[in-house]
Amino acid sequence: MMYSKRIDGLVASPLREILSVIDRPGMISFAGGLPATEQLPQFNLANIPQQAMQYGASEGDTALREQVVKEMADIGLNCKLDQVLILSGSQQGLDLVAKLMIDSGTEVAVEAPTYLAALQVFRLFGAHLTPISAERLPKLTYAIPTFQNPTGHCMTASERHALAKKCDQSHSLLLEDDPYRDLAYETCERRPVCALIQTAPWVYLGSFSKSLAPGLRLGFLVAAPELMPHLTHLKQAADLHSNRLAQWLVLQQLQDPRRVQRMNDLVAYYRNKRDAFEACLQQYFFDLATWHKPEGGLFYWLKLHQPTDTRALLDLAISNNVAFMPGESFMPFGDAALGQFRLNFSHATPAQMHEGLSKLAAIFRT
Amino acid sequence: MMYSKRIDGLVASPLREILSVIDRPGMISFAGGLPATEQLPQFNLANIPQQAMQYGASEGDTALREQVVKEMADIGLNCKLDQVLILSGSQQGLDLVAKLMIDSGTEVAVEAPTYLAALQVFRLFGAHLTPISAERLPKLTYAIPTFQNPTGHCMTASERHALAKKCDQSHSLLLEDDPYRDLAYETCERRPVCALIQTAPWVYLGSFSKSLAPGLRLGFLVAAPELMPHLTHLKQAADLHSNRLAQWLVLQQLQDPRRVQRMNDLVAYYRNKRDAFEACLQQYFFDLATWHKPEGGLFYWLKLHQPTDTRALLDLAISNNVAFMPGESFMPFGDAALGQFRLNFSHATPAQMHEGLSKLAAIFRT
Repeated sequence: MMYSKRIDGLVASPLREILSVIDRPGMISFAGGLPATEQLPQFNLANIPQQAMQYGASEGDTALREQVVKEMADIGLNCKLDQVLILSGSQQGLDLVAKLMIDSGTEVAVEAPTYLAALQVFRLFGAHLTPISAERLPKLTYAIPTFQNPTGHCMTASERHALAKKCDQSHSLLLEDDPYRDLAYETCERRPVCALIQTAPWVYLGSFSKSLAPGLRLGFLVAAPELMPHLTHLKQAADLHSNRLAQWLVLQQLQDPRRVQRMNDLVAYYRNKRDAFEACLQQYFFDLATWHKPEGGLFYWLKLHQPTDTRALLDLAISNNVAFMPGESFMPFGDAALGQFRLNFSHATPAQMHEGLSKLAAIFRT
Repeated sequence: MMYSKRIDGLVASPLREILSVIDRPGMISFAGGLPATEQLPQFNLANIPQQAMQYGASEGDTALREQVVKEMADIGLNCKLDQVLILSGSQQGLDLVAKLMIDSGTEVAVEAPTYLAALQVFRLFGAHLTPISAERLPKLTYAIPTFQNPTGHCMTASERHALAKKCDQSHSLLLEDDPYRDLAYETCERRPVCALIQTAPWVYLGSFSKSLAPGLRLGFLVAAPELMPHLTHLKQAADLHSNRLAQWLVLQQLQDPRRVQRMNDLVAYYRNKRDAFEACLQQYFFDLATWHKPEGGLFYWLKLHQPTDTRALLDLAISNNVAFMPGESFMPFGDAALGQFRLNFSHATPAQMHEGLSKLAAIFRT
C-alpha cells in the first residue's frame, strides 16, 4: 500500500466539481456559496506597509488579532489576545482542530445535514460521525448554530443553552463554525454558543469570506486558552503563517468608518435577493416542495414532496445550464436525502432566479 | 486522553520561538531565513481584477499554473497544466504530502541535518525518520538538493543522478524541496532531481517566498500525474484554495519584463551579503570553526572545533542581542549536533554582521 490509510476515505468534495462547472458561460448556479461579486468591497491598496510582504508570526499580526478581540467582545464572546489565531480561511480551522482531536475511529458529533467540507476533513482523519442529538456527546462536537449550512436554521436561545450545557456535561470540545453571522436579514439570537460554555473546551471559527472577500482566504479562531499552544504549533506546521497582505487589507476594512454602512448595504442587498428568490420559489415550487425562509446566510434547503433522487437529475440540470447541490453530500451518516437539496440565493440575478428555478422545477416535475 | 495521538509528538519549532525574538529592537538575528526587506519587490496594486476577491479553484488560478508550467520547462522539469497545484506557501506542500503518505510508523528518509519545519510535519504524522544515505529508501524520501537548508550544500550532477536512481530502484516517492534555487551566487548544477526520475513517484515543491515575498505565502507543487487527484482533494480540505490576490500579484511579477533585471539585482545583493559575511567569519571565527562558503541560498553552517553545546549559549547570545540557530533542531535522528549551528547572512547589514559575529565569537570562545 503506497498511500497513507487516510487516503482511502478521501473523496472529492462535490463542491469542487461544481466550482469547475459554474464558470461555464450561461450557467445559472444555485450550487456554491459565492458572495455576490458586485458587492465585494473596494480594498485600499495604497500605503501597504513593506512588512506585509515579509515573514510573520504564526499567530497572525497583532493589530488584526487585537481587532478580533474587540469584535468578539461585541458579540458576547470575551477573550484575550493570546486566544486568537489568524487562519488561512476558516476551513483551515477545521483542519487544525481535526489534527488536534481526531485519531482513526474518534467519534465526532455533527448536525445532519451539515457543511460538506467539514465532513470531508473529519472523514480524512478517520472520524466516526455520530448525531449531535444523542444524549451524551463524544470528545468533539461540530455545529453551525447561526444560519446553518445547508438548512439555514438559526438556533434559538434555549437551543444554544442546551447545546452548551450538553457539551459541559460531556466535556465535549465544541467546534462552533460561524461564517454567516453577519448576514442576518431578521432579528434573531446569534450569541456564540462558545460564550455559554462553562467548563468544556471550545473553538470558535470566524470568517472574513462572507462579509469581506473569499479570495483573500482569511479567517480566525478563538479558543479556550489551554488549546492555543497546540493549535499554534499545528498552524505553523501547516503553512507557517497566513498571508500578511490579506491580514493588513482586512484590518483596514474592519477599522474603516464606512464599515457599518457597507455591512448594512450588503445585508439589505442579500435580503432583497432572498426575498426575490422566495417569490420565485413560491411561483415555481409551491406544489413541489416545502422549505423554510432563512433568517440569514446564503442558502435555501428544499424538500420535494416526492422523494426523488436529485443526484440522478443533476447532470440533466447542468446540461440545461442550471446547477444545484443534491442533499446527500451534506449527510454525515450515509443516510439518504431523497428529495432534499440546497439552493444558494446570493449569486444569481433576479432574471437568472426566474429562469433557473423554472427550469429546475420543470426537471423535478418530470 | 483528550487530544489525538499525534499531538504527543508535536513540539514548537525553535524557528517560531526565534521569530518572536527577532522583532526586538536592537536584535541582530542570524537565526531565521528572512529575505532582506529592502529587496522585496514593489507590487503593482492597480487594476486588480474583481475575480481575485472571489472564491477560486482548489488547483489555483489557471494563468498562474500555466506560468509555472513555462518556468518548469525552463529549468528542465517538463510538466502539464494538470500537474501543477498552487499552495499557500511551499510549507503547505509538506503538510499535503505528509497527509498523502505518512501513517504512524511510516519510514521517511531525510538528509541529516535538514529543514526543521519539515521534520516537525513528518513527526506530527508519526513518521519514523531514516537516513537518505541508506542502501534502500523507504516509500517517501525528502531532500533539498539545491543550496540545502541548513548546510547550503548543492548536489553535483552525479549526486543528483544517484539520488534519482536510488528512488527509482526503491520506488520511493521523492519529495524535492527547492525554495532557494533562484538565489545562486556561483554557477552550479541545479537541475531538479525530479526531472531525472524514471519510474518512481515524485513531488517538486517551489516557493515564491525567497525570490518574491514571503508575506504573500504562495508556493506551488508539481507532481507525477497519478498523485494529483489526491493532492488536490487534500488541498481542498486544508484551505479550499490559496489567496487569489497573491496569485494575481505573483503572476504579474513573473510576467514583468523587468523581472530578469530584478532577479539579477537581488542575486548580486545577496552575493555581496554573503561575501561580507564570509569576510566577517574569516575575521572572527578563523580559529574557532570550519565552514563551507555556500554557492547559494541564505545560510552558513558552522562547526566549532570544540564540541560545545550551542543550545546552552543561545540565551546568553540573545541577552547580548544576537540570535543564531543551534544545530540540534535540524537533526532528524535525535543525534547530537555539538558545536554545529546555522547562521543566516541575508538579513543583517554589514555593520550588524561585524557586531553580531564578533559578539557570537566571544561567546563561543569562553
